[in-house]
Amino acid sequence: MILTVTLNTALDITYRVPQLRPHTTHRVTEVTERPGGKGLNVARVLAALGHDTVVTGFAGGVTGTVLRELLTGLAGPGDGQGTPRGEITDALVPIAGTTRRTIGVVDSATGDTTQLNEPGPLVTSPEWSAFLTTYTRLLSGASAVALCGSLPPGVPVGTYAQLVREAHAAGVPTLLDTSGEPLRRGIAARPHMVKPNADELAGLTGSTDPLRAARDARRRGARAVAASLGADGMLVVTSQGSWHAAPPRRLAGNPTGAGDAAVAGLLSGLVEEVPWPDRLARAVALSAAAVRAPAAGEFDRAAYDELLGRVEVTERPAAA
Amino acid sequence: MILTVTLNTALDITYRVPQLRPHTTHRVTEVTERPGGKGLNVARVLAALGHDTVVTGFAGGVTGTVLRELLTGLAGPGDGQGTPRGEITDALVPIAGTTRRTIGVVDSATGDTTQLNEPGPLVTSPEWSAFLTTYTRLLSGASAVALCGSLPPGVPVGTYAQLVREAHAAGVPTLLDTSGEPLRRGIAARPHMVKPNADELAGLTGSTDPLRAARDARRRGARAVAASLGADGMLVVTSQGSWHAAPPRRLAGNPTGAGDAAVAGLLSGLVEEVPWPDRLARAVALSAAAVRAPAAGEFDRAAYDELLGRVEVTERPAAA
Repeated sequence: MILTVTLNTALDITYRVPQLRPHTTHRVTEVTERPGGKGLNVARVLAALGHDTVVTGFAGGVTGTVLRELLTGLAGPGDGQGTPRGEITDALVPIAGTTRRTIGVVDSATGDTTQLNEPGPLVTSPEWSAFLTTYTRLLSGASAVALCGSLPPGVPVGTYAQLVREAHAAGVPTLLDTSGEPLRRGIAARPHMVKPNADELAGLTGSTDPLRAARDARRRGARAVAASLGADGMLVVTSQGSWHAAPPRRLAGNPTGAGDAAVAGLLSGLVEEVPWPDRLARAVALSAAAVRAPAAGEFDRAAYDELLGRVEVTERPAAA
Repeated sequence: MILTVTLNTALDITYRVPQLRPHTTHRVTEVTERPGGKGLNVARVLAALGHDTVVTGFAGGVTGTVLRELLTGLAGPGDGQGTPRGEITDALVPIAGTTRRTIGVVDSATGDTTQLNEPGPLVTSPEWSAFLTTYTRLLSGASAVALCGSLPPGVPVGTYAQLVREAHAAGVPTLLDTSGEPLRRGIAARPHMVKPNADELAGLTGSTDPLRAARDARRRGARAVAASLGADGMLVVTSQGSWHAAPPRRLAGNPTGAGDAAVAGLLSGLVEEVPWPDRLARAVALSAAAVRAPAAGEFDRAAYDELLGRVEVTERPAAA
């Protein structure tokens, strides 16, 4: 199975309003709730690709309960489209605090989203110890681990470095998808892959040239760097070479969750031992197909199937 | 005790953000949750004035559970400021649906609030019957009843007329605070008081002149009409005369809940048999003091004490 870690899970709530007008009152016309946080989205895409996944991290309070109930509802059988769906197993660690909510307010007039993210709950020291025990146990059965998203209050900033080292000790490859100081510290522990976007990469390295910045990130410790470039696709810099891949056309839709779909593509390619150019094509096609789906953690299967063979992958020169 | 009815209760959530910018992502810096819905706010103000209150209406789902827990937390002893606090008793009727949330996004830069109100849960026919049984039972111990707010889906539009008639049969005076068709239908059942604002009154009568519109509303059935005029105070038209009251000055703050504080002032004055001019002064002082408090259902006690003797009440001419 593939393990995904989401330390700052969220109950993702989407509100649809006719038009968002600040400082007025709105009747919400549609409310949807989904289990959220990057690692949970990654797990949903992996399950749709046929991979059994285990999700861990923290959940607590009434929102944590709702999140876990929704997660159980997702772990159903096949999707009726030929691909046997993987299982999603809930191994979230309970906490006394309350899982945060995120509210996405979708403006029906424009399709634009205004996002309101609550701060995460405080994680206590005993809760953190309980998580580490669970994580170490789960690593023994994992073929790969994704470490995803921001850190809630109370979790040390060097956490991802520690989790990468634990995975190394267990012989499990790691993909780290975070930003800021947790990314900087985590990269130094030599994860197998990092997946920053161009902004996160620039924040890490100071360079706004993605190829240069990705090479710099490798020098800082990441064995492979997959930089997501939005509508321009993705660039990977690895020990075996560098490639760029772009979707055949820009797709309109909701970019939330596109990065998580890319992570699922990279991880599934890793455990299936797919060569880097094909792994990259899969990540880019999934990312583009996720833009066509209404919510993070979902993708448009038909768009994915159609795009997969049409993603253009080009090799980039080795570092100077 | 005073009974307040809130058919469309809500878990009121307040988010503070540095500045609300549509179509961007915000980190919420402060989250507060309160039991909400007009009748619950009225009950909180009544309790602070020393009146025992019973709240009924509907609550369900996880948000309903949180709302009831918060309500229990409010029913504490005195406020330490000399006034013995009244008890708040929870007589909400459980439903299978989930109590709605309302989100108020407060812009720290300007203090302005953007409101997002979820639709209410569907109330089934057996749930509605259970409510009517509870309501009739509670009326037997009530000195007055407030019927407050909008109707959730599944509740008939003529509901307030029915609840007013039941109260008449039990000999309990009624105050109706709603809008639109529920107000129009409810007024025809001859409630003791209605408390529309100027817009609601204009919607009901077609007249934008508050005095003329209030007289019209009396002809439609309301025995007394208390029209809230925002910063301009309040106008009442009764069988004993008409009066206008205005606060001595405009107070800056949050107008949410000012109308509910006014309802509490009118109701407490009714059960204490305070003459109309003093009852009106109390409603206006409470309403102004509510503007100074951070949340609906609260008021600034010092501001109330100071304003009460300084509200100017003037008699208005009898109807032509």
